[in-house]
Amino acid sequence: MIETKVIPRTESAYDSPLLIKNILAQSVRYNPEREIVYRDLFRMNYLTLNQRIHRLANALTGLGIGPGDTVGMLDWDSHRYLECFFAVPCMGAILHTVNVRLSPAQILYTINHAEDTILLVHEDFLPILEAIKDQITTVRTYVLISDRVYGDAPEAVTTTAVEAAGEYEQLLAEAADAFEFPDFDENTWATSFYTTGTTGNPKGVYFSHRQLFMHTMGLVSYFCGFEALPFSHRDVYMPITPMFHVHAWGFPYVATMLNAKQVYPGRYEPPMLLNLLLTEKVTFSHCVPTILNMLVQSPVAKQVDLSNWKVIIGGSALTRGLAQAALELGINVSQGYGMSETAPVMAVVHLNEEQLQLPLEEQLAYRTKAGKMAPFVELRLVDEQGTFLPHDGQATGEVVARSPWMTQGYFKEPENSEKLWENGWLHTGDVGSLGPDYYLTISDRVKDVIKTGGEWVSSLDLENLLSQVEGVAEVAVVGMPDARWGERPNALVVPKPDFQDLLTAELIKQQMQRFVESGEIKPWYIPDRILFVPDIPKTSVGKIDKKKIRVDLTI
Amino acid sequence: MIETKVIPRTESAYDSPLLIKNILAQSVRYNPEREIVYRDLFRMNYLTLNQRIHRLANALTGLGIGPGDTVGMLDWDSHRYLECFFAVPCMGAILHTVNVRLSPAQILYTINHAEDTILLVHEDFLPILEAIKDQITTVRTYVLISDRVYGDAPEAVTTTAVEAAGEYEQLLAEAADAFEFPDFDENTWATSFYTTGTTGNPKGVYFSHRQLFMHTMGLVSYFCGFEALPFSHRDVYMPITPMFHVHAWGFPYVATMLNAKQVYPGRYEPPMLLNLLLTEKVTFSHCVPTILNMLVQSPVAKQVDLSNWKVIIGGSALTRGLAQAALELGINVSQGYGMSETAPVMAVVHLNEEQLQLPLEEQLAYRTKAGKMAPFVELRLVDEQGTFLPHDGQATGEVVARSPWMTQGYFKEPENSEKLWENGWLHTGDVGSLGPDYYLTISDRVKDVIKTGGEWVSSLDLENLLSQVEGVAEVAVVGMPDARWGERPNALVVPKPDFQDLLTAELIKQQMQRFVESGEIKPWYIPDRILFVPDIPKTSVGKIDKKKIRVDLTI
Repeated sequence: MIETKVIPRTESAYDSPLLIKNILAQSVRYNPEREIVYRDLFRMNYLTLNQRIHRLANALTGLGIGPGDTVGMLDWDSHRYLECFFAVPCMGAILHTVNVRLSPAQILYTINHAEDTILLVHEDFLPILEAIKDQITTVRTYVLISDRVYGDAPEAVTTTAVEAAGEYEQLLAEAADAFEFPDFDENTWATSFYTTGTTGNPKGVYFSHRQLFMHTMGLVSYFCGFEALPFSHRDVYMPITPMFHVHAWGFPYVATMLNAKQVYPGRYEPPMLLNLLLTEKVTFSHCVPTILNMLVQSPVAKQVDLSNWKVIIGGSALTRGLAQAALELGINVSQGYGMSETAPVMAVVHLNEEQLQLPLEEQLAYRTKAGKMAPFVELRLVDEQGTFLPHDGQATGEVVARSPWMTQGYFKEPENSEKLWENGWLHTGDVGSLGPDYYLTISDRVKDVIKTGGEWVSSLDLENLLSQVEGVAEVAVVGMPDARWGERPNALVVPKPDFQDLLTAELIKQQMQRFVESGEIKPWYIPDRILFVPDIPKTSVGKIDKKKIRVDLTI
Repeated sequence: MIETKVIPRTESAYDSPLLIKNILAQSVRYNPEREIVYRDLFRMNYLTLNQRIHRLANALTGLGIGPGDTVGMLDWDSHRYLECFFAVPCMGAILHTVNVRLSPAQILYTINHAEDTILLVHEDFLPILEAIKDQITTVRTYVLISDRVYGDAPEAVTTTAVEAAGEYEQLLAEAADAFEFPDFDENTWATSFYTTGTTGNPKGVYFSHRQLFMHTMGLVSYFCGFEALPFSHRDVYMPITPMFHVHAWGFPYVATMLNAKQVYPGRYEPPMLLNLLLTEKVTFSHCVPTILNMLVQSPVAKQVDLSNWKVIIGGSALTRGLAQAALELGINVSQGYGMSETAPVMAVVHLNEEQLQLPLEEQLAYRTKAGKMAPFVELRLVDEQGTFLPHDGQATGEVVARSPWMTQGYFKEPENSEKLWENGWLHTGDVGSLGPDYYLTISDRVKDVIKTGGEWVSSLDLENLLSQVEGVAEVAVVGMPDARWGERPNALVVPKPDFQDLLTAELIKQQMQRFVESGEIKPWYIPDRILFVPDIPKTSVGKIDKKKIRVDLTI
C-alpha cells in the first residue's frame, strides 16, 4: 500500500458500514410481494420474511443471545435457514451452519470448536445430538425445529432428547415484531462453517459482513449487470446445494437482495425436487454434478419441460458428457468455479452474444470451462517457484486468487491460514490455465494430478473423455503408485442402467483409442485399471472423494 | 456502533480495498469491443480506452504528478474526461473537475482552494486562464487540450496563453502502455469539485474511492438488478449533464463498469445532441429539465423517432407539463433525486410491472415524483425539532439521508461540514414526504417554501400547476416579502413561441382557478405577480436560480 491523501472524517458524519442488514433492507423496497416457498409446507412474501427475521432476532435475544455469540444450526434447506442467514449476523452474532453430513464425532468437533452457545436443531438430527450431547461443551440452549408444525393439522412438537427452550415457530409467534438491527464494524464475523479437508479435523472457514456484502454485489453485477446466465429478479430460485455449505454458494443473499421468488426444497429427494421445479416454475438452480446427473438420468426428466431451467454446476468438474445430456433436455447448464474459502464464487461461464449463436457442440467447450472471472475477482497462475505465468490459454500453473470476499483463513489454525495465503494471494490448490478472454480452465487439483513417466496428466481431463464413452454414467480417475512409472491412472466407472451388463474395461479402452487417434491424449494416458462400481465415493458436500478412492484401491 | 467479534487479520492475506481501478478492471472482461465515441471526432473500444488510461497515467507521472497531487481539468464532456475519471484517482492523485461555468474569479478561487498542481485545459478556456493565470498559486504545469488534433487533417496545436508542457494526445502518444495502478487506502481522496452555494464562495465537495465504488455498485444494483428504467450493458449512454458536475452524476463510472457504449457530446449544441442521439443510437441519457425542454421544444424533435430514448431528469423538478410533452414524443422520461454532496443519486423513479401497465396519466404521477429510494440509501424526514416523521405519504419534513457514498463535507470548511451532517444524518435542505412504498416526493427547498398567512406553500407545486397552463413553456415561483401576509408567491413565465403575444397574467390566473375549483390549491396560492420573461435565470449547473430571481424582483 502506498501513502495517499486519506479523507479526514467529519465528526458528526455517518460512515456507512457494509453490513448484511443493508442487503435485507432492499428486499421489501421493489417487489415485496414475491414469495419464499418451503416445499409444500410453507409460503410467505418478503414482507412476512422481514417480519419473521425481526421476530427471530427478538426470540434469540430473549434466549440470551447477543453480539459475539455463535448460533449453530442443524436443518435441511429451508426458509428457517434463510431467516437465520439474516437475523443472526444482523444481531452482531455469528451463524455456524453445521455440516449435517459429517460423522457425529466431526459434528461434535465443529460445535465445540466453533464455541456454539445455542443450537437450532431439526428433529431429524436429534438422534445425532443425543449421541454427542454429553460431550458438547459450550451450548447453553437448544431450540427445536420440526416440519410437523406446518399445514392444515399442525402438531405440537416436543422432545426428550435435549431440554429445548422451545420450538422455532412457536418462539417466532411469541416474539415482538420490531428489532432495531445495530450498526457495527463491517469486519464483524458473520458466519462460519467447516470444510472437510483431506487430512485431520474439519477446518472452520469464516466470513465478515463486508465479505458477504461484497460477494453479493459481485454476483449481482455479474448476473444482472453482464447478464451472465442470466439470473434476474424475475427468476425463481431454488438451491440444490446445502445451505450449510458456503451459504448455498451465497445465492440466497443474492436472491433476497433482488426480491426474486425463492424455493427451498428441504432434503434432496428427486421426486420432491422435480415436483417443486415444475409446480413452482423454478428457473435457476445450482448444484454439484451428482445431483444434475441424478436428475438427468431420472426417467421423469424426459417427460417434462426443463427448457426454462438454468443451472450452475460447481464443486466438481462438469464433464462434457453430462453437459451435453443436460443441454439435450433443454437445461441451460454451465459451470462455475469457487471453493469454501472464497465465499465461494470466483468464476462463472458467461457466453457473450456471439458465443450464444454458436452450435451446441462449440458452446460446450465454453460451458464446461471453469468460468470467466467474476467482477472484482483477480485470478493468476503461479509455477512451483511462485513466478506468475502468462494468461495465454496454454501455460498451466496453480490458480491463485484475490477479491474482496475471501476468508482470512481457518479458525484457530494460524499456520494453515498463512499457508492458504502466500505472498498475498489465496492458493486454491487447483491447477489450470487462463485465457486472454479471462476464461479459466481447471485441469486438476494440485494433489490429484497424475505424475506418470515424467509427465503430468490431468485426472479431470481423463474423466471428461471417459464420460463421453457410450454407456458411462459417472467416472472418477486417480493416480495410483506404480513401481515403473511413478503413478498410473486408475478409473472407477458407474455404467448407465441400460449398459450394466454390456460395458467392459476392454470396450472402454478401445473407445479411448479414438482420443489417442485424434491426438487428444497419448496412448499411456489410458487407465491401467478400470473398475465398475455402483457409486463413486463422494465427500459430505458431493465432491468426488479421491482420497477415499485411493485408499479403497490400495486395500 | 456496538462491540462485536471482529475478524482478526491473517498477516499474509490480501485485504482488497474498494478502489476505482476495480471498476476499470471489469471494462475489458465482458464486452470490450463496445465503443466510446466523442462527437464525430474520435472513437475507440474499451481495450483502447484502457490502454489510453494507462498511457495517461504514465504521461502524468512523467510530468511529476503522483499520489496526493491534485489534477485540475477544464474540458467539455469528452473521452478525455472519462480517461481522467480513471487515470488520475487510480494513480492515487485527486481529480478536480473545474466548473467552467463559474465566473473567472470563482474559477480562480476553486483552482487555488483545491491546490491544483497541474491543469489540463481545453483551448476554448484559454481566454479565462489568461485572465487569471497570474493569480494562480499552486499550478506548476499546464497541458493543452484541443479538438483540432482529431480527424483527417489534424493540426498541430500550441498556445502562448500559458507555457504548456504539451498537448494531451501528443503526450499520450509518447507515453508507455503499461502502468501498474497501486493499492492504497480505500478512503483515499479520489475527486473533488465545487458547488455554487447560495451565499459566499463555491464549496468544495470531495469523494473517496470507496464512496465512488459504492455509488457505482448502488446504481448497477438498481438499474440492472431491479431494472429501474432500466439501464443495461446493451444501452448506448450519452450524458447531457456536465462531467465537471458530480462526475456527470456518476453514470460514466456505471457505463464503464458495464462496458456499455458511451457517447460524449462535447458542448451542448442542440443540433449536435440530436445528431448524436440518432446516428449513435443513444438509448440512455440524463439531464436537467432545461435541456429536455430545449429538445422537446425543438421542431426537429417532432420529426425523429425518440421512442428508444430513456432520460432521467434531475437538478430541478421535472414538471408534469414537461414530462407529458416528453412522453408524447415517445421519450421514456422519469425523475431522479440527488445532490452534489450525495455523489449524487439517492432516488430514481422505478415503475414495477403493475405500474408500467397504468395509463400514461397515472404513470405521470410516479414519473414526476423525486424517485424511489435507491439500494443502500436510507432517507428519513425530520421536523424542525429533529424528530423523525412517519413515512405515510402525508407528513412533510426535511429530507435527511445516509448511504455509503455521501461526502464527509466541504473542503476546508469544518463548520459547514458539521452543519451538513447533524446527528449522523446528511441534511439535504429539501422538504418532502415519503410513502410506505419508498417513494420520495419533494415539495420544495427548505429556503424556497413560501410562508404566506401562516401557511407553507410549496413553490414547486405551484410551478408544477403553472407548467400545465396552455402556452407556458417554463416557469419559476418565488416567495417575495409582503407586509400583510409575510410572503406572497410571485411567478416568472416563459411563454411558448406560439403564445408569445397571447398569454397574459389574467389568462393564467383564470386558468389557475381550475385548480382552486378542483381543490388542489387554495385561492390565495395564485401568484400575485406574474411576469413574462424570455429566460428563467439558472445557476451554472442549470438549476433555477431563485436567489437571483428574488434579487431581480426586488430591484
